[in-house]
Amino acid sequence: MIKVAIVGYGNIGKAALEAVVAAPDMQVAGVVRRNASAVPEELKPFNVVADITELGQVDVALLCTPTRLVPQYAEQMIQKGICTVDSFDIHTQIPSLRQQLMPLTRKAGTVSIISAGWDPGSDSVIRCLLQAISPKGITYTNFGPGRSMGHSVAVRAIEGVADALSMTIPLGTGIHRRMVYVQLQEGADFETVKAAVLADDYFRHDETHVIQVESVDTLNDTGHGVNMVRKGVSGVTHNQRFEFNMSINNPALTGQVMVACARATQRLAPGTYTMIEIPPVALLPGTAEENIPSLV
Amino acid sequence: MIKVAIVGYGNIGKAALEAVVAAPDMQVAGVVRRNASAVPEELKPFNVVADITELGQVDVALLCTPTRLVPQYAEQMIQKGICTVDSFDIHTQIPSLRQQLMPLTRKAGTVSIISAGWDPGSDSVIRCLLQAISPKGITYTNFGPGRSMGHSVAVRAIEGVADALSMTIPLGTGIHRRMVYVQLQEGADFETVKAAVLADDYFRHDETHVIQVESVDTLNDTGHGVNMVRKGVSGVTHNQRFEFNMSINNPALTGQVMVACARATQRLAPGTYTMIEIPPVALLPGTAEENIPSLV
Repeated sequence: MIKVAIVGYGNIGKAALEAVVAAPDMQVAGVVRRNASAVPEELKPFNVVADITELGQVDVALLCTPTRLVPQYAEQMIQKGICTVDSFDIHTQIPSLRQQLMPLTRKAGTVSIISAGWDPGSDSVIRCLLQAISPKGITYTNFGPGRSMGHSVAVRAIEGVADALSMTIPLGTGIHRRMVYVQLQEGADFETVKAAVLADDYFRHDETHVIQVESVDTLNDTGHGVNMVRKGVSGVTHNQRFEFNMSINNPALTGQVMVACARATQRLAPGTYTMIEIPPVALLPGTAEENIPSLV
Repeated sequence: MIKVAIVGYGNIGKAALEAVVAAPDMQVAGVVRRNASAVPEELKPFNVVADITELGQVDVALLCTPTRLVPQYAEQMIQKGICTVDSFDIHTQIPSLRQQLMPLTRKAGTVSIISAGWDPGSDSVIRCLLQAISPKGITYTNFGPGRSMGHSVAVRAIEGVADALSMTIPLGTGIHRRMVYVQLQEGADFETVKAAVLADDYFRHDETHVIQVESVDTLNDTGHGVNMVRKGVSGVTHNQRFEFNMSINNPALTGQVMVACARATQRLAPGTYTMIEIPPVALLPGTAEENIPSLV
């Protein structure tokens, strides 16, 4: 059994814990939280600690912290000889995170799988595969409908905003509409807030609609999705058409991808990997021999 | 540059050759045909030989022979120290082909990638990924519309049939209709032929329609497609929905997949692999570092 620790217990940590419990080949080593004394009911059966060293043997740590804290937590775990999986999602910083962790994992003899969510993550695997089987062409990744965490946080930072939700709506060819729902602080002026949203770097390049609501909380839904489309050339043959769609619960999928990658950490040579660098069968319970008959 | 030989020059061999020529990191070592003296116009620029040893150094041989001849050709090439890629497509025999070639490739220090087409092949990679990210659920693979080679051959073997084409029509949930177009030999009786088709093991379990035509040749089209659907569970969250569609030229895609795998043979440890055992990035020109920024 692979001993898995959950580090951070927000939406993703909760979903990752559920996926570890459901995995036939894993057991929960424990949950690491800053405040280990406030233990919600569903965590009662598990070890909840403030420091991972209190958990005894841990094979893999799932880093379910805010994405910006991933690099420092990954370094700490690797230096303790623990494999890590994260869903670090700042696309432009993935190469540097990989470069940062590579020498550490090689030195420690551990494996880190980074950016293991759905985008980056499972979508990246499909983008890579489609690129390989139709080397010329364009892949469009269309997100949503679903919440954009980054955009929502940007709106919440605007003066006068009590709570906010930014929905990403796919318009095709990688173009997205932003539907921004704002709940104002008492006395705040909607038109002022709206102008600030529209002027923000997160929004000024996209079609953006700002809508005032009484309560953002009542709009909350963790559903999300993607529509990836590629039209490309195989050999000299044009007009090869590919499409991938999914409509999913966002934290549940992210947690499950992390758990599949936790398994892969136990099967790879020491180093730091993105998901396109991992044999897909390494994500599954059982050997290649056991999985080939039903999947290939 | 990876030196690639094409073994067999039917539809797939022709498409594979085109894909090798289009690849930035490969060169054509030559084409191996039983009849090396009958050289069609488009093969004039290439070495066409009856035996691969006449080609000098070959890094990889793409086995574009009929599928049943793949095992013997693969053995011959591996024993010569040449890596191989095939698109062996008898699903039930893939595990035994892998088992047959594994000790040979390990002993020879070569790599063989088997069943590298689109199904088995790239579809297998997607089935594997979807299984990993939603471990419980059902994946339906719906083929077509497109020609089924195996079914067409079965009809051609029936007495009184001059030529035949069996089209696979997807009805959803993995159920397919067979549209069988037959061109009769002179004096053959259509009703007798039709009864023989409907009684054949290839057809008697499926909805099958047999239609007499003047010429099968005029119906020929190499387009094909797939619709893969999975509804599954990630962690404890049900109703996760995934769908993959493609509409493609069949030999062009098969040839391109084989060429991508030819590249991977140069990057893997000696052994025999199906596509789910290969890191997707190994299919692409360039290093992981070069591909990660645009794909992950």
